[in-house]
Amino acid sequence: MRIPYGGDYNPEQWPEEVWKQDHRLFDAARIDTVTVGVFTWARTQPSADEYDFTTLDRIVERVAAEGRRICLATGTGALPPWLAKAHPEVNRTDFEGRRHRYGQRHNACPSSPVFRQLSTEMARQVARRYAGNPAIIAWHVGNEYGGACYCDLCAAAFRDWLGARYSTLERLNAAWNTTFWSHTFTGWDEIEPPSALTEHWRGPDHTAFQGITLDYLRFMSDAMLANFRDEKAAIREADPTTPVTTNFMGMYRPIDYHRWAAHLDFASWDNYPPDDTSQARMAFTHDLMRGLKDGQPFWLMEQTPSYTASRDVNPLKRPGLMRLWSWQAVAHGADAVLFFQLRASRGACEKYHGAVVGHAGRSDTRVFREVAELGAELEKLGGVTLGARTPAKVAVLFDWDSWWALEISDGPSRLVRYQQVVLAYHRALWDAGADIDVVPVDADLSRYDVVFAPALHMVKGDLAERLEEVAGRGGSVVTTFLSGRVDEDDNAFLTDVPGPLGPLMGIRVDEWDARGPEFVNPVRLDNGPVVDARLLFELVIPQGADVLGTYEADFYTGTPAVTRNAFGQGYGWYVAAGLDEVGVGWVVRQVLDRHNLGGPYPDVPD
Amino acid sequence: MRIPYGGDYNPEQWPEEVWKQDHRLFDAARIDTVTVGVFTWARTQPSADEYDFTTLDRIVERVAAEGRRICLATGTGALPPWLAKAHPEVNRTDFEGRRHRYGQRHNACPSSPVFRQLSTEMARQVARRYAGNPAIIAWHVGNEYGGACYCDLCAAAFRDWLGARYSTLERLNAAWNTTFWSHTFTGWDEIEPPSALTEHWRGPDHTAFQGITLDYLRFMSDAMLANFRDEKAAIREADPTTPVTTNFMGMYRPIDYHRWAAHLDFASWDNYPPDDTSQARMAFTHDLMRGLKDGQPFWLMEQTPSYTASRDVNPLKRPGLMRLWSWQAVAHGADAVLFFQLRASRGACEKYHGAVVGHAGRSDTRVFREVAELGAELEKLGGVTLGARTPAKVAVLFDWDSWWALEISDGPSRLVRYQQVVLAYHRALWDAGADIDVVPVDADLSRYDVVFAPALHMVKGDLAERLEEVAGRGGSVVTTFLSGRVDEDDNAFLTDVPGPLGPLMGIRVDEWDARGPEFVNPVRLDNGPVVDARLLFELVIPQGADVLGTYEADFYTGTPAVTRNAFGQGYGWYVAAGLDEVGVGWVVRQVLDRHNLGGPYPDVPD
Amino acid sequence: MRIPYGGDYNPEQWPEEVWKQDHRLFDAARIDTVTVGVFTWARTQPSADEYDFTTLDRIVERVAAEGRRICLATGTGALPPWLAKAHPEVNRTDFEGRRHRYGQRHNACPSSPVFRQLSTEMARQVARRYAGNPAIIAWHVGNEYGGACYCDLCAAAFRDWLGARYSTLERLNAAWNTTFWSHTFTGWDEIEPPSALTEHWRGPDHTAFQGITLDYLRFMSDAMLANFRDEKAAIREADPTTPVTTNFMGMYRPIDYHRWAAHLDFASWDNYPPDDTSQARMAFTHDLMRGLKDGQPFWLMEQTPSYTASRDVNPLKRPGLMRLWSWQAVAHGADAVLFFQLRASRGACEKYHGAVVGHAGRSDTRVFREVAELGAELEKLGGVTLGARTPAKVAVLFDWDSWWALEISDGPSRLVRYQQVVLAYHRALWDAGADIDVVPVDADLSRYDVVFAPALHMVKGDLAERLEEVAGRGGSVVTTFLSGRVDEDDNAFLTDVPGPLGPLMGIRVDEWDARGPEFVNPVRLDNGPVVDARLLFELVIPQGADVLGTYEADFYTGTPAVTRNAFGQGYGWYVAAGLDEVGVGWVVRQVLDRHNLGGPYPDVPD
Ligand SMILES: [Zn+2]
Ligand SMILES: [Zn+2]
Ligand SMILES: [Zn+2]
Repeated sequence: MRIPYGGDYNPEQWPEEVWKQDHRLFDAARIDTVTVGVFTWARTQPSADEYDFTTLDRIVERVAAEGRRICLATGTGALPPWLAKAHPEVNRTDFEGRRHRYGQRHNACPSSPVFRQLSTEMARQVARRYAGNPAIIAWHVGNEYGGACYCDLCAAAFRDWLGARYSTLERLNAAWNTTFWSHTFTGWDEIEPPSALTEHWRGPDHTAFQGITLDYLRFMSDAMLANFRDEKAAIREADPTTPVTTNFMGMYRPIDYHRWAAHLDFASWDNYPPDDTSQARMAFTHDLMRGLKDGQPFWLMEQTPSYTASRDVNPLKRPGLMRLWSWQAVAHGADAVLFFQLRASRGACEKYHGAVVGHAGRSDTRVFREVAELGAELEKLGGVTLGARTPAKVAVLFDWDSWWALEISDGPSRLVRYQQVVLAYHRALWDAGADIDVVPVDADLSRYDVVFAPALHMVKGDLAERLEEVAGRGGSVVTTFLSGRVDEDDNAFLTDVPGPLGPLMGIRVDEWDARGPEFVNPVRLDNGPVVDARLLFELVIPQGADVLGTYEADFYTGTPAVTRNAFGQGYGWYVAAGLDEVGVGWVVRQVLDRHNLGGPYPDVPD
Repeated sequence: MRIPYGGDYNPEQWPEEVWKQDHRLFDAARIDTVTVGVFTWARTQPSADEYDFTTLDRIVERVAAEGRRICLATGTGALPPWLAKAHPEVNRTDFEGRRHRYGQRHNACPSSPVFRQLSTEMARQVARRYAGNPAIIAWHVGNEYGGACYCDLCAAAFRDWLGARYSTLERLNAAWNTTFWSHTFTGWDEIEPPSALTEHWRGPDHTAFQGITLDYLRFMSDAMLANFRDEKAAIREADPTTPVTTNFMGMYRPIDYHRWAAHLDFASWDNYPPDDTSQARMAFTHDLMRGLKDGQPFWLMEQTPSYTASRDVNPLKRPGLMRLWSWQAVAHGADAVLFFQLRASRGACEKYHGAVVGHAGRSDTRVFREVAELGAELEKLGGVTLGARTPAKVAVLFDWDSWWALEISDGPSRLVRYQQVVLAYHRALWDAGADIDVVPVDADLSRYDVVFAPALHMVKGDLAERLEEVAGRGGSVVTTFLSGRVDEDDNAFLTDVPGPLGPLMGIRVDEWDARGPEFVNPVRLDNGPVVDARLLFELVIPQGADVLGTYEADFYTGTPAVTRNAFGQGYGWYVAAGLDEVGVGWVVRQVLDRHNLGGPYPDVPD
Repeated sequence: MRIPYGGDYNPEQWPEEVWKQDHRLFDAARIDTVTVGVFTWARTQPSADEYDFTTLDRIVERVAAEGRRICLATGTGALPPWLAKAHPEVNRTDFEGRRHRYGQRHNACPSSPVFRQLSTEMARQVARRYAGNPAIIAWHVGNEYGGACYCDLCAAAFRDWLGARYSTLERLNAAWNTTFWSHTFTGWDEIEPPSALTEHWRGPDHTAFQGITLDYLRFMSDAMLANFRDEKAAIREADPTTPVTTNFMGMYRPIDYHRWAAHLDFASWDNYPPDDTSQARMAFTHDLMRGLKDGQPFWLMEQTPSYTASRDVNPLKRPGLMRLWSWQAVAHGADAVLFFQLRASRGACEKYHGAVVGHAGRSDTRVFREVAELGAELEKLGGVTLGARTPAKVAVLFDWDSWWALEISDGPSRLVRYQQVVLAYHRALWDAGADIDVVPVDADLSRYDVVFAPALHMVKGDLAERLEEVAGRGGSVVTTFLSGRVDEDDNAFLTDVPGPLGPLMGIRVDEWDARGPEFVNPVRLDNGPVVDARLLFELVIPQGADVLGTYEADFYTGTPAVTRNAFGQGYGWYVAAGLDEVGVGWVVRQVLDRHNLGGPYPDVPD
């Protein structure tokens, strides 16, 4: 057993003589695993009443005969044209209220009974046919779930979802604070999906009612999860054991992967970093993916060997970078290294997307050589890293609800972005060489000495108590501006800011100042540097906390920007402003040093 | 009697124990006036057949019992959900042609018979119930009227409005110059609202037929005025005397407040300046609001004590600024100083909008302290400023028709913006310390020594004669580039530019040059500085006027940029290009000096 | 016979006393030709059953009586309102799927049977009535054909067009590579127009299936061509000889003028350059227009004497520029010099568009004087240039298919724009003083010594062989990055890049690097300068070619950026990166020098 190495393989696009060449090239590159069938629905079900596995049979047989392993897709990642024509309601209605017609992928309404029935049946047919084939090492359901639908079927499903959540309209009206702007709902059918035609202005982040939009985000994530679960259940009818996954997309805002994770047997994700200098970002995403299932390894399901095609500008991965990033994935917990795609398609929107084998079918290219070299290295490594876990003492909390709530909020600042705040702290930890877990807010925190909770806008359940427990037993908890603002319904806490985090932080915030990116307020750190702060500046009134950094400008000069509060045996840290990289680094080092959690190789250049 | 001080108060969002705390805090802050009921429709009419004033009764009773004064809203600022569901046609159809569903506020079609009937009945019910309550000092109809609808009901109402305006299609075709591009209408029902689906491209300012778009702007302003008048009439059935108002939004393009003003008993407006350096702009807007009803005082109906929430970046008002700006309002004619809002709402899009009392309910915050200090100052002032008028000798003309016509015009330049031109001249007058009235083009000009008419694109009725009369008796009239171009139908005058202003200005303009903002043509002023001019450069051929400034660059070097024409006992000034602040200031000082109208404290720093 | 001089004339907008003034002014300006009737449909057919030529008769009679020549329009450039109301399906459905209502111009669905029938009948009526009038020297069909429709009628017509092109769904599925993303079509009616509701994202250039979008572009160009041909055939029923044209718009992407050209008796175009420094661009466009009909002269159908109105900023043409550019047109092959417009319209979106006669009707303006001076010059010239041809030895290929394919492609770079690449090479040739033909890819290349094929993304038919023939007999062929990538269906060639151009170029390209505009890779030219390269960098592996330029930066430092391959008696040149003006100039001079094709006056300042 070795790390699965290979990637997406679509031989149905080619005549069979090409398949022969493919396998010769796979051998040369030590490719032992292929993902097949991702977009085969139109072929495997050419009409409503007909399933036809002729081609898929031949592909699977040939791959197995060549000794390769298979990650077999259910093939429901894109609708076939006949289905969209026969049942127009399976096509999505977009945020602008426009019912789409056939095209693209990610194109099905998740609430459509026809789509749910036919996609489930497709998974059932595939599983029934290929279950037991020893080449199959994983099932791949759908593909990169995402997007959103605003159709009447989804509206009805949303109302059901709300009924289950709130039971009564009284509770719903309270949760959404509908008295504001005369929105009191007196019938469930008065509720509409929040869209450009209803509560929104300017776009998906600008809503009159944050509570409605937040619940729709949760609902839509759940609706697509139901699609995944439908298919998984159908697979399980025929195959009770082979692991089932779907490919995630890292920090992908529309889907709360934490709510999905329990339903996957292992996580997997597609890594398309925006540019050559994304190492820190990728490190974070790998940690996030590893944190989905409590530290369990994940698969790197897709990466390009060379370039993407969908961006305005698609730069080439520099020589050596693909290898470096593949090993980074393994080091962070990846148990598979797979490419999209093994052979470049001839036409349509990915014909210029990088591939292991290009249009000319050559093996004497730089890209193929690098792929083959990595294949040889992984073969040599064998299975030694498979299943390995690396539990850490430092946790970073990541929370889709806080992400959504912060970014759909009107005020204080649209410029404060959740990912940027979290990434800044993770990056500083990474630079310090610390081992880090990225975990959901309901994770078991008892194993951590240090917990970072950047921009933890929403505080749910007993989280505040559990954070207090960390500090109480001698740990350190760090949070920032715009944390502790709202409850699970996105209603403000009726207490001083930072709400339930106040006792742990030992501070109170009455007001705050948002400014454009051109404005800098320097922050003088205690026995440390003077650093820049930007975008948001909370005015902190200590309620017991010590001041470790102060603003140097504006009418609040000299007031606290960074505080530390002794709590039990430990501390609560509060960073009230958007510090620059040096500032965040200083805070992080202070905290790590106390616990001796800096890594052995800090400050290695990227 | 003292200046009403307080603001928007929405206790229906809170349990009654909070109300008690509210009033204690209002006492501490010398708050004596509250606006209640703005968004209560869903509560006061929970279904088609049911009115329920239980909550509003308790609020009004409590406020009155506490000795406070009430500005009572009719509550029609946002539809209740049941109404939108039962009568989908009450929801607006937007510029893109999309019929909306329930959401937001400002969401009713002004032409919908159901909306008109039910909103009027709501006002009638409220007035009937509370008329005679001595605490009520004003009625507040609707809220921040605005937006536009493009539905079929509005199309039909537009055709009726056109029928009343033009009587025959012949006259309509002539007014719209429909022979151009084969647009001759042969039936009233062929006329469509000008939208993204009909005459427009790129957006609301880009139209193929300026005349159609201009008339639709007028119609829509009138349609919403009819909504206001419906409600006012219903109030008057029960209460013949208490003044009725609605809150305006300053320089708000969609509504011609000059056409509305006669129907309000007093004007009021909501002041949300874009940033900390808006003093000059606010001075202008206060003057505009005071000019709506011939110098009669107005109310400052809303301002934030600290920050807004709806902007991308919502900075904090610096300490002292709220006080300074409140006094500025009083000095410019405000007879009330009110905040939005007294207590911050818990949820939805204004939960981070500033409030006198925040989520924690504290009175020991900086913001509350400043509010209380201003309350004490206003209490000490008493009623001494109430009803005061400050007639001026300098008028600035402001004209919605010119604003619309200029900004929907194709050519010469989309970069010339009406507000910027008018503000530049008002600001120079303000810097010079002059007392200024901002008045409509049909105002009585006989009281003014100096009249500024910047960017007076449209010249209607006998305006040219009345301006000539000002100059004839020794006054000064100043106008600028892009003035005197079109008649009331937006058809070009078939004379030399500047049309009917030509004789007074003593010039003729055959051509003009529009340039990007990066291009500067220096203008040498007579015995004055060389200043920058930008965006638009008219080429002036004097027909009797003296040249007081000349271009210094391009092929028209040495030709006139500023002229002054002796006319009767006075002068007509023409500024042919977009001068910078120094240049506009120089012109303004020349004019004021002749009339000794500079103020006693010119050039005070902002 | 002299060069027709005059322009668009719309006297139907004015009372007849103005016509008298018009003709006096035309005489003064030596205007001898007018285009009439372009937007007269509403007047000539005021209702479904009625044609009324009263006004047009008087206009034509008067113009003829004054001794002027007429370019007579069929008048179908904009629908009349009654037609749009009676047959809503004649209004276009836009890319967003919105059926429009009446408004604008360019507003008819080209597939609508009603529009086709009525517009053809309109042309028939006009031709029948005025054929034989000796004043008429040309027929002007429609006006500036363009735009696109996505309605169900167009969908049906598209399917018919596809049926004619592909015969079977098997061939269509292969051409579009539908196996990718499960798009296999099993019924013709499953095919939808590619729009924002189907295959597109972000806009018209971002499509999931390039093949579908490419075919729709071809179809829509053909559909409007059918409209033109309908009208032309109706004219020919009454008038077998007078030439028929329509006014093109230069490099206008939506219409493949090469496919239209055979159906026009002569080409004509409207020249509205973006700014004062467009000489090189206009030179190219004139050459393109002259190349449409194999070098035959064309008409300059429209230009403004002063300014446009539709741009954000509409600068004034400097004195002398209108004259200079008119002579440039004549030198490049124009056989007519016409303005839009002779008299400025009073209202609507072109009231500020420049005109020979302005609103005041003056002849003592600078613009009128310049028009009259040019009129006198052209009168003096007489007919000496009419029909002149200037065959060149240098060809630049221009190809709408390559333009479309390149710009709808996902990857490598959205920043590489076809026009910019082609213009860069043409400009360098123009700077070198060469005579240039701009020709379609199916032109006879046997007459050229040098052929430039910049960004020739698509290589169709026997083009590669014909280019090889040019080099084989001693000529030079130059192509660039992103050439030779796809076949006629937009499917990648299954060979090394640059596909069928590989043997001629003697190179192979395995990979490429796209970068933002801020990144520069210097290219060292052989015995030449070091120049900047930007945006796209192909990595070239010579297969026999000589290296004439190398990259100076990045991991591919020292590898080829410019190559020259000896082929037969001549050469194939390949420029692998986006060189700057100096770099392109160097390549062009190297090539021209070999053939002694530089002009006598190179490097004249613009
Ligand atoms: Zn749906
Ligand atoms: Zn309406
Ligand atoms: Zn159509």
